[in-house]
Amino acid sequence: MTAGKYAALFEPVRIGPVTAPNRFYQVPHCTGMGYLRPRADAAVRGMKAEGGWGVVCNQETEIHPTSDLSPSPEGRLWDAADIPALRLMTDAIHKHGALAGVELAHNGAHAANLLTRAPVLSPSGGAINAMHPKQARAMDKADIRDLRRWHRDAARRAREAGFDIIYVYAGHEMTLTQHFLLPQNNQRSDEYGGTLTNRVRLIRELLEETREEVGDTCAVAFRFAVDQMQGEAGMQATGEGREVVQMLADLPDLWDVNVSGWENDSATTRFQPEDGYQNDYIRFVKEVTQRPVVGVGRLTSPDMMVSMIEKGIVDFIGSARPSIADPFLPAKVREGRIEEIRECIGCNICVASDNQSVPIRCTQNPTMGEEWRRGWHPEKIAAKGAAESALVIGAGPAGLECAMQLAKRGYDVTLAEAREELGGRVRREGSLAGLVAWRRVADNRLHDLRQRANVSIYAQSRLSAAEVGELGIANIFVATGATWRRDGAGRTSHGPIAVDGAMQVLTPDDIMDGTLPHTGPIAIYDDDPGYMGGVLASQLAEAGREVTLITPAPIVSPWTEMTLEQDRIQSALVTLGVRIMTGRALVRVTAEACITAGVYGEPEQAVPCASLLMVTSRQCETALYDQLAAMRASGDIALDTLELIGDAAQPGLIADAIYAGHAAARAFEGDPSATNAAYFRREMVALTDEGGQA
Amino acid sequence: MTAGKYAALFEPVRIGPVTAPNRFYQVPHCTGMGYLRPRADAAVRGMKAEGGWGVVCNQETEIHPTSDLSPSPEGRLWDAADIPALRLMTDAIHKHGALAGVELAHNGAHAANLLTRAPVLSPSGGAINAMHPKQARAMDKADIRDLRRWHRDAARRAREAGFDIIYVYAGHEMTLTQHFLLPQNNQRSDEYGGTLTNRVRLIRELLEETREEVGDTCAVAFRFAVDQMQGEAGMQATGEGREVVQMLADLPDLWDVNVSGWENDSATTRFQPEDGYQNDYIRFVKEVTQRPVVGVGRLTSPDMMVSMIEKGIVDFIGSARPSIADPFLPAKVREGRIEEIRECIGCNICVASDNQSVPIRCTQNPTMGEEWRRGWHPEKIAAKGAAESALVIGAGPAGLECAMQLAKRGYDVTLAEAREELGGRVRREGSLAGLVAWRRVADNRLHDLRQRANVSIYAQSRLSAAEVGELGIANIFVATGATWRRDGAGRTSHGPIAVDGAMQVLTPDDIMDGTLPHTGPIAIYDDDPGYMGGVLASQLAEAGREVTLITPAPIVSPWTEMTLEQDRIQSALVTLGVRIMTGRALVRVTAEACITAGVYGEPEQAVPCASLLMVTSRQCETALYDQLAAMRASGDIALDTLELIGDAAQPGLIADAIYAGHAAARAFEGDPSATNAAYFRREMVALTDEGGQA
Repeated sequence: MTAGKYAALFEPVRIGPVTAPNRFYQVPHCTGMGYLRPRADAAVRGMKAEGGWGVVCNQETEIHPTSDLSPSPEGRLWDAADIPALRLMTDAIHKHGALAGVELAHNGAHAANLLTRAPVLSPSGGAINAMHPKQARAMDKADIRDLRRWHRDAARRAREAGFDIIYVYAGHEMTLTQHFLLPQNNQRSDEYGGTLTNRVRLIRELLEETREEVGDTCAVAFRFAVDQMQGEAGMQATGEGREVVQMLADLPDLWDVNVSGWENDSATTRFQPEDGYQNDYIRFVKEVTQRPVVGVGRLTSPDMMVSMIEKGIVDFIGSARPSIADPFLPAKVREGRIEEIRECIGCNICVASDNQSVPIRCTQNPTMGEEWRRGWHPEKIAAKGAAESALVIGAGPAGLECAMQLAKRGYDVTLAEAREELGGRVRREGSLAGLVAWRRVADNRLHDLRQRANVSIYAQSRLSAAEVGELGIANIFVATGATWRRDGAGRTSHGPIAVDGAMQVLTPDDIMDGTLPHTGPIAIYDDDPGYMGGVLASQLAEAGREVTLITPAPIVSPWTEMTLEQDRIQSALVTLGVRIMTGRALVRVTAEACITAGVYGEPEQAVPCASLLMVTSRQCETALYDQLAAMRASGDIALDTLELIGDAAQPGLIADAIYAGHAAARAFEGDPSATNAAYFRREMVALTDEGGQA
Repeated sequence: MTAGKYAALFEPVRIGPVTAPNRFYQVPHCTGMGYLRPRADAAVRGMKAEGGWGVVCNQETEIHPTSDLSPSPEGRLWDAADIPALRLMTDAIHKHGALAGVELAHNGAHAANLLTRAPVLSPSGGAINAMHPKQARAMDKADIRDLRRWHRDAARRAREAGFDIIYVYAGHEMTLTQHFLLPQNNQRSDEYGGTLTNRVRLIRELLEETREEVGDTCAVAFRFAVDQMQGEAGMQATGEGREVVQMLADLPDLWDVNVSGWENDSATTRFQPEDGYQNDYIRFVKEVTQRPVVGVGRLTSPDMMVSMIEKGIVDFIGSARPSIADPFLPAKVREGRIEEIRECIGCNICVASDNQSVPIRCTQNPTMGEEWRRGWHPEKIAAKGAAESALVIGAGPAGLECAMQLAKRGYDVTLAEAREELGGRVRREGSLAGLVAWRRVADNRLHDLRQRANVSIYAQSRLSAAEVGELGIANIFVATGATWRRDGAGRTSHGPIAVDGAMQVLTPDDIMDGTLPHTGPIAIYDDDPGYMGGVLASQLAEAGREVTLITPAPIVSPWTEMTLEQDRIQSALVTLGVRIMTGRALVRVTAEACITAGVYGEPEQAVPCASLLMVTSRQCETALYDQLAAMRASGDIALDTLELIGDAAQPGLIADAIYAGHAAARAFEGDPSATNAAYFRREMVALTDEGGQA
């Protein structure tokens, strides 16, 4: 049953010699799995195909040992030994009727070759694109010939592995082909440098040779960043970006176009709240080529998708993050279950996983990355066991997810929340500058819970232990969250910091509760690596306050480098006039100032302020749980289950809380040994050369 | 033939139920291999045993999924599936008569559990020990019972894997056992917190239980950091460190003692030039226990080793880095080949590899980490082929290593160096503050070369292409190095930076040549992630100059975080009064000042200076090579081999240059396809659960 309104999305589209069954196209994206976790990666991609994506691509795939991104586990097709692992993936994709794409990549000076110790190659030499004291070798003609041969050989291996669409990749400023295109990286004086015709030569050759090698049965796609979003300092869609498309117009079978670098392509909602934000950059492409075009831009609205097709902006709805948040997005559109789509919140936790070289995680979709390891399916969960009912205390991310999954399993679920508003930290943080998309986490789950007859939700219902006992529900999940500490204890100071009682000391919770700092300068002491300190600095500065952000870290919100936001965060604070003091720890607080000391031994310095906002660490809210546990131990309450979950058990990312709620609901009434075994499940290295083969 | 003077080093020593064949003890150290590269790791350890180490240990070995150090590939013994990989290692060690040790570890809040998503455990909760927004869970009694059971189970698995010595590990501030010991991490109020007796309880239990489980056949070792080197702020050898040893005195079969954190244990020569630098901290241990004691401290001198035994400081000569620099150190002592010992230079490139999660590398020993992948042996190399002679141009690290290995292979080697002094960059950089140990790289090779009748060395012999032709040698290796650029081009500015001709602009080469900056303030523009900028700032400030170090990076010498030096480098500059301006790029230079701009958009700022020292990137010195290549192409010179190696081909670490010289010498007259195949050799993931088994 295809909803008529969205029928256009389900038309098959020809791509050279192959045909995609519909217009939903999962563009290449990393998973932190790759060659280290081939079975897990195959399961991720297979799930997308099962969910209705007509094309499912791999991630950037190293074609040769001179493109060795170690320790990052990307795709790999160095030689025939890599084929069996990728065949697992193509089989999983084909099983559901989708096409499988592979993004062949030579990363040039973006690859440090730390495993292979092969020469690092680039158009003109110079520093490699990593914080490592190593320079690249300027490629000579023999190197270029080698590269072309490697790419051709990799294309052949890709076909052998079962891929239907084979990419040439010039994007994200991470590949040699794009490095050849960009004058900043290419200062050659031969036929591969200088004019755009020369700088595009290598790409043309690779496209032609890939077609020659595999074009009879495989489509040749070209992923190309049309705009660097650096204005005149970089390639622009209105200039050379367009010219490149004109020059190569019908050479590839498909254009997969976006903007670069990665932080622009995968912009977070915090800095780019609009879905479809790449449309203005890419809409020219279809004017120039006859070939089908794929575009992205965190597309989650089927209405926008249809409109993009109808307006002729793209032929395929490209997606990375929305397909991670909801692998079944196409199926839900097809079946008219639009409200059930789990919308990407644009938080880039998926990106962070890859940047940390660990398996992909998603805030919205706790099953992402767990398909193989735990056998989790994003849309399926086991029916309930013998128990009838469960009480979930706390309607933050852990509680909401736990309640929703328990309800799906068929239990009678009572969800109690102390506050007036449901959603816990995602609701509360959603009130802060740039974080409104966090609320989707609650909205999606509340919408689901409110449809269900077996769910009772009580807001503004702070339960005492005695009241919990009176409810008579034998299975209790306590998701009471965590609150920010006021005493300064955290990463840098293990114990409380001495504070004069005359100083107003606030926490992020105070700000979210609407408490205003006293008139005068505000000092923020940010000892947390996440986003909170930067968000509050931004919010207070935007409100016209004089803000000094003090942090022991060398940069503001250091962990946000993982989500590709750090540069934007600190730049925005600079623009807002926030005074930033990095590398300084708070040592004590007087009635009128923060006394800081440099982490490298720099002398103490006073930062006069009227109020101090402490962003250091969080305290688990376990009082109710502790009381219930004590009552249970003393026999005052009869419980089958009492479990502390989410931030109340261990403060972490929102994604961690959702995951904890999900895991608790899955494990409820299950075999504890199976739950335990899941921690141990991992892919292992073969001890013989043959062991790596299927 | 054991040299009498060193006979004491070759006495067997009993360790509980096992006996070490001699006193050379490779303490646990990381390799960046672990469970991801088990065959390579086994080859590393086997080579140590072959080289005469009486005990060869593994690295920290995760005992459970709650100690998941992903993405770092450490040892792993989560369950029985990990046994076969480790058995490869114990077999390789036993083959040469050595004992095999395993360092069981639970890393507590030092492990972020990013793969397993298991709870992070710590004595009292709080921020995890990683720049990640996650907190640990304070362990309850059930957690402690679990931990003890996990450790016991892991000990049993370790025995099954063939290990003879099984560790309890409380060191480097990286393990839960040490976290329990330290009041800063342990604020518990139960019997595991408070008094030292309580804080040591867990360690005592683990030692007892390990003995109970495997003590009949395996020795139980305790690795313990006796001093945190924080003075009264931390544990001290004169205080609780000693008390711990007293409390547990004869409970372990062996004490492996050191100082913590890792940056203190593995101090570099730059900051700790003295070998045996831990002796003053650990010498008390033997006064307190009857059990054998292992100590470390970058011990390379057999005389010092004997003296440490004779003075009763230790029973075993512990070694990590010196055993990496020369796996055959014991054999060389035994055979009286003292001069042939390749001394560790204390550069921590080995540590950096592990910190980057890639296989271990060593500046002095280019075969380290290549035993399995390339089949390289540190002491053996194939005899020469048909050719008779070779010319090596340039006596820097690449040229010296290439010449030495070619000479070992039996070729007549001519080594020509343009400068008066041999050694190239290691000689020159060795003149800078803290880097004198770099010279060992040249000294070791020159000593070897000078013993050989088939080697001719010509210093102060800058050859023209014509002169090379006149020599009539058909095989030429050009190792002419690289020089620092003066134009500012590098990582941040791809092209030259505009500089007023009136400003004195210097490079590191100028400083090494003895050029003095003009009187007045000196600005250093450091756009290189390595050590050079910080070294020069230090040297000039020590000479009394007013120095400002400007860098676009957020910290000084950022890559030195990998070598555990960054904090010391920046702290030393602060102490010396160097003005440090991080996060600023050089945009242009006037006659009197550097004009900088903030990398986050902060406005321009002028830094007045009388001279500017550019530390940005290096230019390969290829003029001679280019001329020879042109002559060869035009038939003006007949060459069988013309190869550009080392920094001249691709500037990098000294370790990279040594490796390049070594690889070129190995490959000479070899099968090119075998050389190429070595790039591809890798350990791969099994595609079935059975594939991971041997």
